[in-house]
Amino acid sequence: MKLYDSFRAPNPRRVRWFMAEKGIDDVEVINLDVFKGEHRTRDYLAKTGIANVPALELDDGTTITESLAICRYLESVYPEPNLFGRDPKETALIEMWTRRAEMMVATPLMMAVRHAHPALAALETQSPEVAANNRQAAERSLRLFDRQLAAHPFIAGERVTMADIVAAISLDFARMVKFAVPEGLANVERWRAEMMAREAAKAGT
Amino acid sequence: MKLYDSFRAPNPRRVRWFMAEKGIDDVEVINLDVFKGEHRTRDYLAKTGIANVPALELDDGTTITESLAICRYLESVYPEPNLFGRDPKETALIEMWTRRAEMMVATPLMMAVRHAHPALAALETQSPEVAANNRQAAERSLRLFDRQLAAHPFIAGERVTMADIVAAISLDFARMVKFAVPEGLANVERWRAEMMAREAAKAGT
Repeated sequence: MKLYDSFRAPNPRRVRWFMAEKGIDDVEVINLDVFKGEHRTRDYLAKTGIANVPALELDDGTTITESLAICRYLESVYPEPNLFGRDPKETALIEMWTRRAEMMVATPLMMAVRHAHPALAALETQSPEVAANNRQAAERSLRLFDRQLAAHPFIAGERVTMADIVAAISLDFARMVKFAVPEGLANVERWRAEMMAREAAKAGT
Repeated sequence: MKLYDSFRAPNPRRVRWFMAEKGIDDVEVINLDVFKGEHRTRDYLAKTGIANVPALELDDGTTITESLAICRYLESVYPEPNLFGRDPKETALIEMWTRRAEMMVATPLMMAVRHAHPALAALETQSPEVAANNRQAAERSLRLFDRQLAAHPFIAGERVTMADIVAAISLDFARMVKFAVPEGLANVERWRAEMMAREAAKAGT
């Protein structure tokens, strides 16, 4: 298998972090410089159909994009430690929390960065109002996570799962616009510090 | 099991459509009127932690929100016809296409509706520019789907999967703002008409 990766964006980092949690070191990693358009070449688009990174090319030539689809596939090949759930109920709860992390935290923080960071001005007609609204939406969402993390060490329960990886990378990415866990959300801050202290947090950064 | 449902929103419809494809008729369905705030009662929030519909309450009291997490759980209980994939590779490709349908088509069309439909003016400071940008983003994305549907009868390949359900419901919902498949995307239009002619398209509408 080959992983097409890019070191600067948050979505490829999900796959690197996931692989590091599992100790996967036998997947060939090819770094693409998206600022040079290396994800828009004819060869790459012939594989993926879309100018997205990351992408996982299987040995039979099938190419999978979407960080979560890639990670779920890798879990089937490298099952331990389990990060997507061991039975249908646990799998559903992890998917629920992963989607909450993505849609309630990662997506608004991505919008806050796109609409506020000078380096991304070329990608977007930036709006300070859109940036502020998204930042506030993420802050409100984190209250739900704080209640969950008051009762459990990790977002989906008793161990690290995909939900923690998605949420932690998002908060780390949003440091680009000086976003920090709001005061008063001590459980989120405790969990965030623990996640960033993990060896896998350093993968490819 | 009990499904907390709401007849007017697109996400609950994913679960109804999914259940209809599988012929599931032994799950108790409780319809909540979100315009009356029935998803914000103390009892409901005690189950879900969040004012979201749909939610699936299992017999042990566990409650799962997020339409895709609910559907994946239901697939474990009612495996046929398979809608999420029969092996890891097929599962990854279906998840990839489901996420593309959600993020490249359903999310921008949802934004286009929220920012343009008079009935949703109370939910959002509406912006005609945001509505137009999102509409155009969905139109661009559908070109990718048109290429895929030129080569395959359904979005993820040879049979109906979760990806088709997500995309078809999104296009049907966007009729609220008179969105139609752009001219020239004949494969998308062929597929859309076939999806809407399925018996499951009528579930709970």
